[in-house]
Amino acid sequence: MGFRYDIRLSGSGGQGIILMGIILAEAVGIYEGRYVSQTQSYGPEARGGSSKAEIVISDTEIDYPKAIKLDMLLAMNQKSCDDYYMDLKPEGILIVDSTFVKQLPVARVYQIPFTRIARERFGKEMVANIIALGAITKLTDIVSPKSMEKAVFARVPKGTEKLNREALNVGMAEAIKAKKNILPFMRSEREDEDT
Amino acid sequence: MGFRYDIRLSGSGGQGIILMGIILAEAVGIYEGRYVSQTQSYGPEARGGSSKAEIVISDTEIDYPKAIKLDMLLAMNQKSCDDYYMDLKPEGILIVDSTFVKQLPVARVYQIPFTRIARERFGKEMVANIIALGAITKLTDIVSPKSMEKAVFARVPKGTEKLNREALNVGMAEAIKAKKNILPFMRSEREDEDT
Repeated sequence: MGFRYDIRLSGSGGQGIILMGIILAEAVGIYEGRYVSQTQSYGPEARGGSSKAEIVISDTEIDYPKAIKLDMLLAMNQKSCDDYYMDLKPEGILIVDSTFVKQLPVARVYQIPFTRIARERFGKEMVANIIALGAITKLTDIVSPKSMEKAVFARVPKGTEKLNREALNVGMAEAIKAKKNILPFMRSEREDEDT
Repeated sequence: MGFRYDIRLSGSGGQGIILMGIILAEAVGIYEGRYVSQTQSYGPEARGGSSKAEIVISDTEIDYPKAIKLDMLLAMNQKSCDDYYMDLKPEGILIVDSTFVKQLPVARVYQIPFTRIARERFGKEMVANIIALGAITKLTDIVSPKSMEKAVFARVPKGTEKLNREALNVGMAEAIKAKKNILPFMRSEREDEDT
């Protein structure tokens, strides 16, 4: 078994979850040269207004593209946090939009108010997803800031590059702050190496 | 085994293949109420500039979200037609952008010059993918024109609704023309019922 990294991004329809999934997949798949599968599944919960996107990263061709046990979960609302945290691996990373997620299912959580920051810093809630991509860039080792920026620019409207670069940078800065406040792992005391 | 319908959309990066995949998946998954999985896989061919999106439609939850044997293949360039036509079921539907696909691997092909129509009718090659979605709506029974239009409007920029509605309508009209020219199935003589 080679390297495999399973991610789920989740929230409400309208929070830009699917676009995030595509940008993240393209950042890693096109600009970092890894195998990536990116999947969205629609069923009763999609008609209820929930949205999720999954990304599986590997060093070899991916047979089963759905995320299984999660290395990283982003929950942009309370419901998705409640529904999916059980799928995290014991040492998986949980990132929440603390604008909406108030009840934390575990102690070790990266809490960043993506939507509030988007509103207060940019006057546009719709960049919350790009701020979150910036945070993911810093909280995982799966993609470089440069590859992420290229992938964002390839998918956002022409003329919004400056706004989106700032949103990415704010997300990365918030991630560095959040890392300082995070609890260490309880069992193994393994800590991220790149703090 | 319930109903399962496997689709692959393929072409070059820049032809809007991924966006097509998401719109088609949301048309069926959100507005028609079926189970849908939508997957893109990135690997060496993505870095080479190829693009593909897969959609699996089912009446029950989908365990394996990658397309296996195709009920429908859209090939927006010659390479994707060459690479993927072998994955079609014997009675699967092949639709090609005849602007770019000149060498046909089988006799029974829906040939529509999506990109040329986009350029000549709308002055915008980028609507070729929406024209193709219109054609898919008419050439398959998986989605109603109304659901397709809703899904398109949810994903295209505000203010482009009129353009995109016209593009869908042109695609549907071209599909009706293409149906008249298509060869019947060789073996079973099964014909589409809704002509």
